[in-house]
Amino acid sequence: MTPMDLNADLGEGFGRWRLTDDDALLSVVTSANVACGFHAGDPSTMRWVCERAAERGVRVGAQVSYRDLAGFGRRAMDVPPDELADEITYQIGALRVFARAAGTDVTYVKPHGALYNRVVTDAEQAEAVVNGVLRAGGALPVLGLPGSRLHEAAGRAGLPVVAEAFADRAYTARGTLVPRRDAGAVVHDADAVVARSVRIARDADVTALTGEDVAVRARSLCVHGDTPGAALLARRVREALETAGIAVEAFA
Amino acid sequence: MTPMDLNADLGEGFGRWRLTDDDALLSVVTSANVACGFHAGDPSTMRWVCERAAERGVRVGAQVSYRDLAGFGRRAMDVPPDELADEITYQIGALRVFARAAGTDVTYVKPHGALYNRVVTDAEQAEAVVNGVLRAGGALPVLGLPGSRLHEAAGRAGLPVVAEAFADRAYTARGTLVPRRDAGAVVHDADAVVARSVRIARDADVTALTGEDVAVRARSLCVHGDTPGAALLARRVREALETAGIAVEAFA
Amino acid sequence: MTPMDLNADLGEGFGRWRLTDDDALLSVVTSANVACGFHAGDPSTMRWVCERAAERGVRVGAQVSYRDLAGFGRRAMDVPPDELADEITYQIGALRVFARAAGTDVTYVKPHGALYNRVVTDAEQAEAVVNGVLRAGGALPVLGLPGSRLHEAAGRAGLPVVAEAFADRAYTARGTLVPRRDAGAVVHDADAVVARSVRIARDADVTALTGEDVAVRARSLCVHGDTPGAALLARRVREALETAGIAVEAFA
Amino acid sequence: MTPMDLNADLGEGFGRWRLTDDDALLSVVTSANVACGFHAGDPSTMRWVCERAAERGVRVGAQVSYRDLAGFGRRAMDVPPDELADEITYQIGALRVFARAAGTDVTYVKPHGALYNRVVTDAEQAEAVVNGVLRAGGALPVLGLPGSRLHEAAGRAGLPVVAEAFADRAYTARGTLVPRRDAGAVVHDADAVVARSVRIARDADVTALTGEDVAVRARSLCVHGDTPGAALLARRVREALETAGIAVEAFA
Repeated sequence: MTPMDLNADLGEGFGRWRLTDDDALLSVVTSANVACGFHAGDPSTMRWVCERAAERGVRVGAQVSYRDLAGFGRRAMDVPPDELADEITYQIGALRVFARAAGTDVTYVKPHGALYNRVVTDAEQAEAVVNGVLRAGGALPVLGLPGSRLHEAAGRAGLPVVAEAFADRAYTARGTLVPRRDAGAVVHDADAVVARSVRIARDADVTALTGEDVAVRARSLCVHGDTPGAALLARRVREALETAGIAVEAFA
Repeated sequence: MTPMDLNADLGEGFGRWRLTDDDALLSVVTSANVACGFHAGDPSTMRWVCERAAERGVRVGAQVSYRDLAGFGRRAMDVPPDELADEITYQIGALRVFARAAGTDVTYVKPHGALYNRVVTDAEQAEAVVNGVLRAGGALPVLGLPGSRLHEAAGRAGLPVVAEAFADRAYTARGTLVPRRDAGAVVHDADAVVARSVRIARDADVTALTGEDVAVRARSLCVHGDTPGAALLARRVREALETAGIAVEAFA
Repeated sequence: MTPMDLNADLGEGFGRWRLTDDDALLSVVTSANVACGFHAGDPSTMRWVCERAAERGVRVGAQVSYRDLAGFGRRAMDVPPDELADEITYQIGALRVFARAAGTDVTYVKPHGALYNRVVTDAEQAEAVVNGVLRAGGALPVLGLPGSRLHEAAGRAGLPVVAEAFADRAYTARGTLVPRRDAGAVVHDADAVVARSVRIARDADVTALTGEDVAVRARSLCVHGDTPGAALLARRVREALETAGIAVEAFA
Repeated sequence: MTPMDLNADLGEGFGRWRLTDDDALLSVVTSANVACGFHAGDPSTMRWVCERAAERGVRVGAQVSYRDLAGFGRRAMDVPPDELADEITYQIGALRVFARAAGTDVTYVKPHGALYNRVVTDAEQAEAVVNGVLRAGGALPVLGLPGSRLHEAAGRAGLPVVAEAFADRAYTARGTLVPRRDAGAVVHDADAVVARSVRIARDADVTALTGEDVAVRARSLCVHGDTPGAALLARRVREALETAGIAVEAFA
């Protein structure tokens, strides 16, 4: 069976404020999406997460975002493409210096929040993100939804793409995510999240909110880290995958 | 005669706002101190300045600052040393990605504004800046006042130091800068600035505010870029140096 | 003939950066749209503008914006309505304290940039802006485009509305503004701007970009202040209006 | 016996981040020091806290700070006095509009963090804070340490002053606070905090870190709200005061 990567958003505090249980998550996940200072993340936290990730063999990825601390990057913004590309490059560069100082490197890019959702369908911003990644050098893989504009643009530009799925989010019959504002969008039951994780990894499908089975192809599963019990649930997901004979390991 | 470097602060706008005449200055100076986003500077401006600097063979340096857009980095801040070091590293990393994308690199570091003044005498913050530079890798030279705590800390850490002088600032009899708030601190007369530049470069001394001749050792002269006519004055300084037989070239 | 108000955006610097020639504009306009710190504007500038406006009998209005210093409020943002309303209230409160300290008051509200454009058509954000104004108290008039969602929402809520026109912007045959990104959107010729100003004020119409005469109803004309020569052009507009027998005075 | 006010810092989140248990604290304290957006606090939180405080009869005060979200206002800054005064006025104005909308008002001012500490001894910044309060109007009382430069400046300006004490902070033999960085600066034992609270309120003294009894005069006790169990401890303090016959009520 194909191995499965587990990724989580880390370092999402800012100054005095903390959000994610970074230490606990780093003992579970294989890929750490590190906030780079635009929606969350400060230099000292970035350094700390990179050092811990390096120690534990967890991959470091740049969790790039709109510049929006007040909104935590959750508000779509009509940023002109050139500016957006430059903001992406900036964030990758800022994280890279800490990753390298810790003896590792930034090895992939994942957009955060509203930007993640926007580049599913917005070709212009998707291309801007890809341009920002290209300029940063290193041909970094782009983690995102299969079929998204982001993956299309990355593919055209010759960047590797990594398909991601969400065990705690409801899917539509077409295989897209149910928008967060809709009823039933988030799967709150921990047992269900664990079972869906295994099914996505083993069978590459999931039951849609409307009851149909839909194909969900993924090389990485996102586990959320900003709620109480999140790290515990992530650990359960990991153990269930391993019990089902699925290797939990980062993408190449 | 020893050659002389000309450095200026560039890219000190933010978003809609512009301050420095970057294009004109880049045709005069040999070293560009590029704002990295903490006191000024946005990603698109950083990219633009790096690209133009690369085209013209101007060296790119990281003009690192306290995090203070509202105060333009001109207000001393009691930032804890560990945080300050991480903020320095972050800024260097952010600029480096644009410099490398432009085919050049960040080749030195110069603190900005209140931080520049603070690390003349504050050993703790001076060491923090040096630690931030060390962590960024590349053993970057540190541009600053000879005899400053910053240069002492850099020397102890094995970083190269580059001595800087200011032709438009008054010196005390001890060879330190007259504080900006004191009368006569800034030399406004363009002819005087030009004459002092040549004298510093050729004779390594200058007339203090109190009339004495004092030794001023420098491998780089700072020309200011945030006033009308600044680029023109910088050009006059450069021409006067060359006429006096002093090679205007970046430090090694 | 109906009198005409002249409004301009003022105080649009931030810290070290300046944009508008506030002093010159305050000698021409009858209403000052003062930036409140979210897209531009810092406390000291707000105080200064309020004091000068009070001295000269210029009305003070709150130029409210998305929270976006890096983008100067020119990037549309999907801010949730409740948050947007609170941000509007905050900005009005911050300006009001300076206006009152100067012996005047905030007497109207005008959205800035991307928010101005958004609430022409976005009913949800328009209502949010109105809710923010209502919560601030004082039943402040709302300056904006006639027929906009903003004016509809303000009208429903019992707030006075003031119709605004732009002499330096092209109009469509339907009487709406030609989007900035379209060719011909901005009228650059000073004589044309002056002539259009008089025609809007006297005849309540203007020639559309496509050649038709269209009705343009306005009690206030916006003159722009962020370009060289802006204050001079504003003065010419004012003089032409007065020569044509139109009283230049603030709305009630 | 003199009644005692209980004050706590509230609304110290920002956007997605939360810090203080505002709801629990509002059921205990008599005065709420509400963050105004400079070190913490966003418009929606400010509105919420003002509404809850009004419902429960808790007084609203402006917890004014240096502009420093990244450092949570805990880093002393050399802000020029005029700018600092304007920043204070701005914050009071921003909070006032929410307080009034909630049917209450801003009835006092308390500096936060590094500014609080700075104005104990820095006469220039103390005067700047007072000037900012004066300009905001309403002759607001200033909460702070008795004998501080802040209280001296407020007294000279005719502003009421309210003496504050800290039951969870160690005092020197001279009656000043032991700096946070020194060993023993914070009293962590809950029973000790409760006992010290009663003693300050009843006897107006406390045992210094070095063993002496020192006079501590206070009309308000600060209880901290940013640690787990903080609200519970605050409740214990309140109950112990009431049991000792001390009325817990806001200052006039």
